[in-house]
Amino acid sequence: MQLYSFEESGNSYKVRLLCALLGVAPELRNVSLLDDEQHQPPFIDFNPRGEVPVLVDGELVLRDSSAILLYIAGKHGNGLWWPADVARQAKVMEWLAFAASWVQYGVFTARALVSFGIPANGLPADFQGEALAAAHIRARRSLEILETELATQAWLALGRPTIADIAVFPYIALAPMGEVSLTPYPAVRAWIDRIKQLPGFVSMPGLEDPMYRRA
Amino acid sequence: MQLYSFEESGNSYKVRLLCALLGVAPELRNVSLLDDEQHQPPFIDFNPRGEVPVLVDGELVLRDSSAILLYIAGKHGNGLWWPADVARQAKVMEWLAFAASWVQYGVFTARALVSFGIPANGLPADFQGEALAAAHIRARRSLEILETELATQAWLALGRPTIADIAVFPYIALAPMGEVSLTPYPAVRAWIDRIKQLPGFVSMPGLEDPMYRRA
Repeated sequence: MQLYSFEESGNSYKVRLLCALLGVAPELRNVSLLDDEQHQPPFIDFNPRGEVPVLVDGELVLRDSSAILLYIAGKHGNGLWWPADVARQAKVMEWLAFAASWVQYGVFTARALVSFGIPANGLPADFQGEALAAAHIRARRSLEILETELATQAWLALGRPTIADIAVFPYIALAPMGEVSLTPYPAVRAWIDRIKQLPGFVSMPGLEDPMYRRA
Repeated sequence: MQLYSFEESGNSYKVRLLCALLGVAPELRNVSLLDDEQHQPPFIDFNPRGEVPVLVDGELVLRDSSAILLYIAGKHGNGLWWPADVARQAKVMEWLAFAASWVQYGVFTARALVSFGIPANGLPADFQGEALAAAHIRARRSLEILETELATQAWLALGRPTIADIAVFPYIALAPMGEVSLTPYPAVRAWIDRIKQLPGFVSMPGLEDPMYRRA
């Protein structure tokens, strides 16, 4: 299994984190987003979306973090991290969709603009002030939604850690890199701490020092 | 089974379409997005995301269109529309994520701005020109990605219709309502026609007349 990944990509990190928690060790292949390798051959030829991560397992090529999480959890997670029952799968799916929409276009975008100075998601370069304001609105709304859920439950779905938590966790925990404070959201912070205490947990740049890119 | 839905919501339509194709008939409950009912009690209390559709099946409440598609297809689709094998599930998941990200923040947003005049996804009202420009960039990029895929395959995943197609179809087919032309994308248009010819297909406002809201 080869995982095409970038160290500072939260979407790549989701997969590395799940692999670490499950004791799975894919071969890592670096794709430098800072050199825009994801938009050039050879990478763009096998992922036209120009996004990391990509997983290659024999003939199978998977080009989206949530698809890769599902596959690895389904194969190696003993039915715990991705369940077999469709009602339970749907409860996890609610959060995979949340990660791809609310999280990606909120805290993800704010971090890309503030800490990497890149106009995320195809936005023109002269548009960053407004883009950041919009990302901050969605970021705070997404944190309010999470705070409401996590005030009454320890994990996002099924009462245990699943790929729902893994999909939502990185960019939420990295929110301070995009100038979004987690201070007003105690239940979210407690959930972040629970994830960090899972056996096998690995970290990524920015999780402990949100300012490292602006030092 | 009760489906909370709005006639002109493409995300609600995805579920109604799958139900029609599978011969499933949930009780429909209307949530008027034009009256902002999705952000007020009683609806907001059981979906803090303020989004339709929501499915209620006994004790189970599902608050995202892709989660609902997965559940209904898994229960009623004979393993065809949502497969049991995790590698195949992951291939479908690639497109559920694409629908929640590229489609939602491209053609979806353009349509919301142009045809409904609503600042989509929490954007401030004085921001609509730039928001439309950004949505158009992503809309065209997402259509190029789809065109590349559909130039060599009839369906998005597994060589047959699945919930991948149902999740991506509505807002792509409604793109002209957001002033995004489908003319440059013949493979996408052929795929739209194949979906429209599926036995049991039902339509929604705007699919045949993109100008109806601006007449």
